[in-house]
Amino acid sequence: MAAIEIVEVSPRDGLQNEKTLLSTADKLTLIDRAIAAGVRRMEVASFVNPKKVPQMADAEAVMSGLPARADVTYVGLALNDRGFSRALQAGVDEVNFAVMASDTFNQRNQGADAFETIGQLETIAARARGAVPVGVTVGTAFGCPFEGEIPVDRLLSIVDALAAIAPREIALADTIGVATPRDVARRVGAVRARFPKIPIRCHFHNTRNTGIANAWAAIEAGAATLDASLGGVGGCPFAPAATGNIATEDLVYMLDRAGIETGLDLEACIGAARWLEEALGHSLPGQVMKAGGFPDVA
Amino acid sequence: MAAIEIVEVSPRDGLQNEKTLLSTADKLTLIDRAIAAGVRRMEVASFVNPKKVPQMADAEAVMSGLPARADVTYVGLALNDRGFSRALQAGVDEVNFAVMASDTFNQRNQGADAFETIGQLETIAARARGAVPVGVTVGTAFGCPFEGEIPVDRLLSIVDALAAIAPREIALADTIGVATPRDVARRVGAVRARFPKIPIRCHFHNTRNTGIANAWAAIEAGAATLDASLGGVGGCPFAPAATGNIATEDLVYMLDRAGIETGLDLEACIGAARWLEEALGHSLPGQVMKAGGFPDVA
Repeated sequence: MAAIEIVEVSPRDGLQNEKTLLSTADKLTLIDRAIAAGVRRMEVASFVNPKKVPQMADAEAVMSGLPARADVTYVGLALNDRGFSRALQAGVDEVNFAVMASDTFNQRNQGADAFETIGQLETIAARARGAVPVGVTVGTAFGCPFEGEIPVDRLLSIVDALAAIAPREIALADTIGVATPRDVARRVGAVRARFPKIPIRCHFHNTRNTGIANAWAAIEAGAATLDASLGGVGGCPFAPAATGNIATEDLVYMLDRAGIETGLDLEACIGAARWLEEALGHSLPGQVMKAGGFPDVA
Repeated sequence: MAAIEIVEVSPRDGLQNEKTLLSTADKLTLIDRAIAAGVRRMEVASFVNPKKVPQMADAEAVMSGLPARADVTYVGLALNDRGFSRALQAGVDEVNFAVMASDTFNQRNQGADAFETIGQLETIAARARGAVPVGVTVGTAFGCPFEGEIPVDRLLSIVDALAAIAPREIALADTIGVATPRDVARRVGAVRARFPKIPIRCHFHNTRNTGIANAWAAIEAGAATLDASLGGVGGCPFAPAATGNIATEDLVYMLDRAGIETGLDLEACIGAARWLEEALGHSLPGQVMKAGGFPDVA
């Protein structure tokens, strides 16, 4: 693997569960800093019910304040038809949908079982065709807080149904941070074997300290893209004391050392992560932002 | 890989840089809890200058308070002839020596260059023969704070010299927490290729969030044994804001999920880590002790 794409998710998934509401101006600064650090694809907002996710209430304001960059793909998350319309109206470059591999979790999250949600996505994806690229994230792909184990066959049946939508990519998300490298190798391998032409993105949380190990396993198993957030921002409501997303700068450190190109600059990522830590007013779980990169002895 | 041995290092490497001095009684409780959790090989003390490492001043008292367990191997660290004599006198089951791959670091740590230290170890190892098994840890095997990169050839030349001592195992230690999975694969692979019959142990710090990823890479590359500490206790004096050893319970979680036998019980490890956190009076970096294991939905 010579290069890996990193999708910066701090402005959306990273902030979503933060108690501190970041101002629209601060979010735009975060986005600016991420772009300056080399980010070229970024999840910038979700178009969901602002009563349920107050941090995303300014999604349209964030979208209208984004720097006009033809070389940056701004991704918006939508969960239903209404969210998709808002995302389209706001001018996202790409829309991302989500479905849970677990029916129980999907029911709680979206009020329908997984295949009902996929049915709705088919209708929306038909509307999106020609207008905007569509990606789909499969949540709880490595385990569910309510159902526990998600069998590989169940995951594949979800991916089979999604493939009918012809998404630009399919993401496997470890929503609650239970994945380990062996799970990642098996599941990414199984999905790739079934659909060798659909690019795979992976989304890991570092809840049980396996996030970076999972990222490496995903790369070895052929994932093309990894989500990460500056400073590792992003709490998990199912494990309040534990950390959230894998930290962009920690991932870049590992990949730099392996000679794998990301387009991101480690020092600029560290600077942005430290800025975000100050803006939020509390410590973030990223480690390289504290320890620094490989010793510079020149 | 069906099984991996975990060496619990919290009582020595884990506590060594802790500002809070743990009482001998508390250390013995920690050791008891580790054994109850399934630990069968443990670094319990170092026999070094108590003025330099006050936390280890009670090494002899800890040794004399250990439960008499024929099935547990108590390891003591020594850096020189005097330390070795103390360790032998105190009744360790195994003695571990250390040499740095970096001359600069070795000079600062032990007042000699690496090959001078290895020369001293040869004399000591001759004394140890028949009395107690000897292992050697190669520190800064993945990078040095003073010299930066440690070439693989340099590492191999150190291992070549050590092989003459016929140690029971050789450990590669990432003293400052800079290693990444690719480094681990290359270095463990290179040492194994040179000495297929010497068991390899690896010692990782999670300073840059790569510790668990490195552990997995080491297993894949054929390491037989991994060091870990309950709760991830163990600061790094070269990166004060960052975390220390990989957490035993985080490692056990990953290996349990992969079906790799360790002999350790995850819940008992979590309990011991939480006890240690209370005894030290500050938060420890382990994640599974906060998030818990895989959801139990039965």
